Amino acid sequence: MNIEIFEKAFEKGKEAIPLGNVATYIPELGKAGKNSLGLSIYTDDGQRINIGDTQTRFTMQSISKIVSLAAALEVCGFDNVFEKVGMEPSGEAFNSLVELDLNSNRPFNPMINSGALTVASLLLPKMSFLDLADYTRLICLDEEITFNEAVYKSEMANVSRNRAIAYLLESKGIIENGVEESLSLYTKMCSLNVTAESLANFGMVLALEGKNPVSGEQLMNPKVAQIVKTIMLTCGMYDGSGEFAVRVGIPTKSGVGGGLLSVVDKKMGIGIYGPSLDEKGNCIAGRPLLEYLSKELNLHIL
Amino acid sequence: MNIEIFEKAFEKGKEAIPLGNVATYIPELGKAGKNSLGLSIYTDDGQRINIGDTQTRFTMQSISKIVSLAAALEVCGFDNVFEKVGMEPSGEAFNSLVELDLNSNRPFNPMINSGALTVASLLLPKMSFLDLADYTRLICLDEEITFNEAVYKSEMANVSRNRAIAYLLESKGIIENGVEESLSLYTKMCSLNVTAESLANFGMVLALEGKNPVSGEQLMNPKVAQIVKTIMLTCGMYDGSGEFAVRVGIPTKSGVGGGLLSVVDKKMGIGIYGPSLDEKGNCIAGRPLLEYLSKELNLHIL
Amino acid sequence: MNIEIFEKAFEKGKEAIPLGNVATYIPELGKAGKNSLGLSIYTDDGQRINIGDTQTRFTMQSISKIVSLAAALEVCGFDNVFEKVGMEPSGEAFNSLVELDLNSNRPFNPMINSGALTVASLLLPKMSFLDLADYTRLICLDEEITFNEAVYKSEMANVSRNRAIAYLLESKGIIENGVEESLSLYTKMCSLNVTAESLANFGMVLALEGKNPVSGEQLMNPKVAQIVKTIMLTCGMYDGSGEFAVRVGIPTKSGVGGGLLSVVDKKMGIGIYGPSLDEKGNCIAGRPLLEYLSKELNLHIL
Amino acid sequence: MNIEIFEKAFEKGKEAIPLGNVATYIPELGKAGKNSLGLSIYTDDGQRINIGDTQTRFTMQSISKIVSLAAALEVCGFDNVFEKVGMEPSGEAFNSLVELDLNSNRPFNPMINSGALTVASLLLPKMSFLDLADYTRLICLDEEITFNEAVYKSEMANVSRNRAIAYLLESKGIIENGVEESLSLYTKMCSLNVTAESLANFGMVLALEGKNPVSGEQLMNPKVAQIVKTIMLTCGMYDGSGEFAVRVGIPTKSGVGGGLLSVVDKKMGIGIYGPSLDEKGNCIAGRPLLEYLSKELNLHIL
Repeated sequence: MNIEIFEKAFEKGKEAIPLGNVATYIPELGKAGKNSLGLSIYTDDGQRINIGDTQTRFTMQSISKIVSLAAALEVCGFDNVFEKVGMEPSGEAFNSLVELDLNSNRPFNPMINSGALTVASLLLPKMSFLDLADYTRLICLDEEITFNEAVYKSEMANVSRNRAIAYLLESKGIIENGVEESLSLYTKMCSLNVTAESLANFGMVLALEGKNPVSGEQLMNPKVAQIVKTIMLTCGMYDGSGEFAVRVGIPTKSGVGGGLLSVVDKKMGIGIYGPSLDEKGNCIAGRPLLEYLSKELNLHIL
Repeated sequence: MNIEIFEKAFEKGKEAIPLGNVATYIPELGKAGKNSLGLSIYTDDGQRINIGDTQTRFTMQSISKIVSLAAALEVCGFDNVFEKVGMEPSGEAFNSLVELDLNSNRPFNPMINSGALTVASLLLPKMSFLDLADYTRLICLDEEITFNEAVYKSEMANVSRNRAIAYLLESKGIIENGVEESLSLYTKMCSLNVTAESLANFGMVLALEGKNPVSGEQLMNPKVAQIVKTIMLTCGMYDGSGEFAVRVGIPTKSGVGGGLLSVVDKKMGIGIYGPSLDEKGNCIAGRPLLEYLSKELNLHIL
Repeated sequence: MNIEIFEKAFEKGKEAIPLGNVATYIPELGKAGKNSLGLSIYTDDGQRINIGDTQTRFTMQSISKIVSLAAALEVCGFDNVFEKVGMEPSGEAFNSLVELDLNSNRPFNPMINSGALTVASLLLPKMSFLDLADYTRLICLDEEITFNEAVYKSEMANVSRNRAIAYLLESKGIIENGVEESLSLYTKMCSLNVTAESLANFGMVLALEGKNPVSGEQLMNPKVAQIVKTIMLTCGMYDGSGEFAVRVGIPTKSGVGGGLLSVVDKKMGIGIYGPSLDEKGNCIAGRPLLEYLSKELNLHIL
Repeated sequence: MNIEIFEKAFEKGKEAIPLGNVATYIPELGKAGKNSLGLSIYTDDGQRINIGDTQTRFTMQSISKIVSLAAALEVCGFDNVFEKVGMEPSGEAFNSLVELDLNSNRPFNPMINSGALTVASLLLPKMSFLDLADYTRLICLDEEITFNEAVYKSEMANVSRNRAIAYLLESKGIIENGVEESLSLYTKMCSLNVTAESLANFGMVLALEGKNPVSGEQLMNPKVAQIVKTIMLTCGMYDGSGEFAVRVGIPTKSGVGGGLLSVVDKKMGIGIYGPSLDEKGNCIAGRPLLEYLSKELNLHIL
């Protein structure tokens, strides 16, 4: 693999940083270094490329939605999950209530907050937060993942909108019990500390249909990996998912902590950390960086 | 006054009862006798006409929204109230979240749940529930008004949608603190037990610009009475308010407990109890009954 | 009558003019003199007070919606009109399509464009534009009302949004035929040239339940006058109608040409011309002027 | 290639037919034989499999949206097209106006009617309908494609909703001129008569990055083919696109004439004809048929 291409991609990303901003709706997130950027690559032949801040810990935020979705698919089954939450891109912002109130049956998909809270409520009777944290460590191949209590507390102090969504879900019978517990579980999952490298690992596991790239052990049902990748592709970048699919064509999930997890199917896991965000809440360095890689290495899914 | 006209009106209302249904979303409300009907009239010359179930106690429900609005206007002032809640009919159902989420500034008016919850939050630092219950007794000229704890508990067990609205209001900075307390205060006010006669009394006080019809004592600022009557006219019958204004033309507020409070300005207070509801949640006997009175006695506001 | 109160009210209105703007979405309307202001009063004892630009001709615009509604109620009947268009305030801007698309049955009310286009389509087989222009002259007691072809042409060159609404109405079966003719009829009615005095006359006719104030001749069914006044009260000032009802309490209809027509029931017709508009499209001088009159002369409906 | 798998898939599709219905909103479409089913496969090694009604002519309907998108990308360029229309799935039905009215800038994507009408308006100054029909014949490798005038006329007699959308686009400056011409061009393109085999051919061209599978001639820019396939994947099946991507994972575009065009990248073009539709307007035989093929032949994109 030609490392220069990755270095060039990293530079492309770096150039975009000044145009974005660190998330400030939660004080703890506002402390991140705007200029940080890390790119971690893990390939199917076992190579690893790390450029920049790949060992900095930051919170997963919405990237945890795919961990929870995978866990729920494993422990509750496909039909039980998708009876409660759809698979359709919504065309609306991640925290919209409108589409849920008008579309009474179920949240559009598990990547918007209403869907992720529903997934949390499904997990509640099956897995504790400790179980889910262990599962996260397992599929990220990273024993060092810890819980960031300061971020969790900061989020819980600003959680009214998600709480409103959760009670709206209860009023519609979508969350049947444990509203506060679901909200807390969802927020705790958002507060797990990962690195760009952890995300590259998770990406590689998804690329290999759920297999541990070193041991070959099956960590996740291949069908679950397929569903997660597909939903990342159609819904992973909030209301910018469609354009991202056209321009980049690599299934990717973002989080407002600055993380991006990308999967080049069968070939590569990519983890990025860059807390300067675009207006949709996605790491602003990510698109030019990944678009460059996609073109140079021909990684577009189609 | 010709009592036969009122008896005829009562019959007109009675005929409509089979077409409606008692509210059942809360088990306690479902216990009401569907065929009950009471009509209480109180006129400016001191006459009182009572036909049917005018002494039966039932919960105010949304009629309490005008009590709370009056109290808030008295203790917080016009500008402070209407900075937080608008005066516009919304064209949507009483429990919609959509219009609030799209219209970010403030609830459309104090007669929909989002507006009433906002009013409750404004009252919170100024008046306790006990103060408000006393105020209700005062303006209804009814010392017997009690708190229906069974209904309150039944409502609080089904309160998810209002709780969602309350947290959405918090997330927008409209409710600044005391979300749960506001929700509880609002629901307690809904659970005050009145009679058709209490409502006729309150109507007469409003008709007399806030004066006690017996003692002449000013119970409410005349300006406050005017605002309350105007908002009853434009927003008092949920998303059927416009048609009601055209057909009946008497400012009226309904509650899902089956109550209706109407004000014939300067002349008459009218209280109705009839728990069989139309599909918008208004006492189904009310419209034909009041439409008949409006025509026969020329009570239309215009 | 104390003319000084009207002069004072006029001054109150004058002060607000600089805060508004002349409508510019149509070039012809943009030619109006921003500082113009006219106030014409006509009372039930036959007195007339004219202050300022009360003889200037300007186009009726949305004020024609109440002329057409009155005509349709006369020639088609209450039930046929309200089967096609509702009576509910919509909470949305006058030119919204959203509420019509979501609420599939019929437009919310005849004061929004979708409702007014529906009314035009109902009139089409019954009255020609010439008939309607004559009817306007009749109820405005003004033989001089002419058709402003320059404004009509200017409007028809910018009519796409209304045309979209009209075809949406056709697609829902609300307009059954003559979409282009309905659009043209509606726009022609908007282009009738009136004066503040014409509007005061029309207001007086409505105040007198449809009677010619001089001859006593019944120009309009009293029931029609009542419906028109009620809908002016609940829907006459676009999405500012509710607040206007609370603060002023005088049924009023506005037009973007700068006109305002107000009815003090049984007592007074008021016509105002002031093309400087507030952001909702209502004459900006109107509210302080009418609010002052309402308070000083106790004209609030409640 | 194992023909039995395709026969089995065909049977799977056949079983679903009774659950659907032929489109009837346009009389001409209602004449289709509900039980018809055709499956045409064209593979990269030049093999062709035809089962059932693969030579029956039917109108392309919405499948023409991808022809027009491809043409517009070729003649107007990526940036000019996507300045006027987005790339995001909308979460709404294909004929919604709501999302366009609230989201003022541009239609969500070129697969919903508002987006397709915008694309037609962009093509207008560059290509005539005759040019576009020739282009369709070229990329479908089918000289026999004809214009179905009966369907065109039937559609134009029921075109109000699309006309409303087109004028709304004009009112927002998205269609700058030629509203009626754009509407006509769009509807003509919907009325081109293809066969399941034509669609398989077009699918093969897309699979081969725009190359004629026989001659190797480049019929379409490879980048254009990539964009079209990606948008088929995210938006090709109306508001069922997300679920289709998860369950089937083959970029597919449907039309209410009963056609389905699928692309297995680099490997296969698939054309299906089955006019019995599910409630979203997609050929009801398509999903079980393609889901079976996807699983048996491992054709899921991820």
